[in-house]
Amino acid sequence: MPNDNASRSPRRRVGADITKENRFLATHFKRAVIVGVGLIGGSLGQALRQRGLAEEVIGVGRSVDNLRDAVRVGAIDDYANDVESVAGSADLIVVATPISQMAGVFDKLAPRITEDVVITDVGSVKARVIELAAPLADRGLLRRFAPSHPIAGTEFSGAAHSFANLFEAHWVIMTPHPTTDADALTSVTSMWQQVGADTQTMGAEEHDSVLAKTSHLPHVLAFALVYQLATDKASDRHFQFVAGGFYDFTRIAASDGPLWRDICFANKAAVYDALDGFGDMVDTLKACLANNDHEGLRQIFDTARNARLQLHDKRKSS
Amino acid sequence: MPNDNASRSPRRRVGADITKENRFLATHFKRAVIVGVGLIGGSLGQALRQRGLAEEVIGVGRSVDNLRDAVRVGAIDDYANDVESVAGSADLIVVATPISQMAGVFDKLAPRITEDVVITDVGSVKARVIELAAPLADRGLLRRFAPSHPIAGTEFSGAAHSFANLFEAHWVIMTPHPTTDADALTSVTSMWQQVGADTQTMGAEEHDSVLAKTSHLPHVLAFALVYQLATDKASDRHFQFVAGGFYDFTRIAASDGPLWRDICFANKAAVYDALDGFGDMVDTLKACLANNDHEGLRQIFDTARNARLQLHDKRKSS
Repeated sequence: MPNDNASRSPRRRVGADITKENRFLATHFKRAVIVGVGLIGGSLGQALRQRGLAEEVIGVGRSVDNLRDAVRVGAIDDYANDVESVAGSADLIVVATPISQMAGVFDKLAPRITEDVVITDVGSVKARVIELAAPLADRGLLRRFAPSHPIAGTEFSGAAHSFANLFEAHWVIMTPHPTTDADALTSVTSMWQQVGADTQTMGAEEHDSVLAKTSHLPHVLAFALVYQLATDKASDRHFQFVAGGFYDFTRIAASDGPLWRDICFANKAAVYDALDGFGDMVDTLKACLANNDHEGLRQIFDTARNARLQLHDKRKSS
Repeated sequence: MPNDNASRSPRRRVGADITKENRFLATHFKRAVIVGVGLIGGSLGQALRQRGLAEEVIGVGRSVDNLRDAVRVGAIDDYANDVESVAGSADLIVVATPISQMAGVFDKLAPRITEDVVITDVGSVKARVIELAAPLADRGLLRRFAPSHPIAGTEFSGAAHSFANLFEAHWVIMTPHPTTDADALTSVTSMWQQVGADTQTMGAEEHDSVLAKTSHLPHVLAFALVYQLATDKASDRHFQFVAGGFYDFTRIAASDGPLWRDICFANKAAVYDALDGFGDMVDTLKACLANNDHEGLRQIFDTARNARLQLHDKRKSS
């Protein structure tokens, strides 16, 4: 989950039109292992500990400095440098690394876990992550994996910036695969609800298609617009006179480049389709201008404005 | 000038890399006439009055309710319903209507003004506005017209929302045409500086090209993205799970549709070119995905991120 997928003013519950799932009974873990203790992993660790949902939270990561930060801010009780040494004793494993590292993590996990564990991840793309979890299937334990995507974050990264209520009133999308055990899905869903999130279950393909359009496409377009201006011969003039509209529009272009490259390739088909559809929109807009189609342009702008104002009203009334 | 061309957190002075123009001596007007007392016209009226830059400020508009608001908030001393009755006695005329109304305003002004007046406007597009001022040329008085574009605004419109310090630390771009009198340009430039703005002079064509890329294109893209999501069969799902990134990215899609349609057609060639260039960027991104060009996508994202972070630093350090 990228560190700036959500705003500084977090998304709020949006009223009666949203169907929240039933609340499950409380889940309790003895030993939770969080692999990748960044903003998301660290915030989940803090929430699990503060709310008494886990007796012990162990962090795993490559940066000892970051793991020490995680202990200092209360995200984890202790840490290990390799997942192999702690996987066997865990009853919850949360894979919270960038997607590009997940294949290696699942490889190391697979030989050591038992069927008493439940496993989840926090990746922004789900179908690809389920593919990357194939080593679990080789052991017959893919059924213990209940993938999830918390739609939450800030513009900061690392355990030092984590906080326990990051997930409150934010959506977590659960994308079980056909073989996910019902109790594993229930357990992970309950965990997210108990740290304050609203959960919604959908198929991995639907998730990836929706997020391609609402998150991945806007990020790619923002990168593209700023790239275009920055590499134009009149670049200095452009950045000198930008107004606030441009500033808000391109905030997400400050996101982590390699992370977003990985998300785009992990969700390649859906991002390609979203870009293709947007290219058609650009052609439609050009045709409106070329043909002096004032009414066509007005209709596009008004439809968009009304949809955007409704979104604004929903957030305001929450 | 659209009412939401600038952000809620106004653009600030951006340090030593920006060359501000020399400050001119103070200008004083006896009777300023503001045609179109909306957010921009009203804010200028308040600033002129509060800073003693005009002995009297007269508003002209079609809505008496709005003109009464303008009196109430101190934007104008008095108002008239037709510009003909007050044009002859003005030594400053500011045309602050939407661009679509400017042709009619210049038509009515032309027969009545004298060469003692200076005229400016606040339109978001400059070459087209200079064309629309042709009736002044018929009278030999186009030389009294010094066009300007204050890059300032809020998400609100109307005189009731105007405020005197709207222009402080914001840019106003002056776009004199070849026949603009030096004293008219100096007088209008001085006026903007005295209400707190930083001024910059450039040709109308350069202005329109720069603003097409930094303001008009982002607005059009934001409208297009929201339109695409709103008209998709999975529209409900899209708007249910949008994150903060999407929310910021599309804020400007709540802008006034007809106003922006007019801006796009008033700056048609430059907006078409900007859209055309952006269409090429979309094709480049699609090709990166199709060809598994990880390095190409990384380079675009990193270049954009670095440019955007520099912009962020400039604003933060101001």
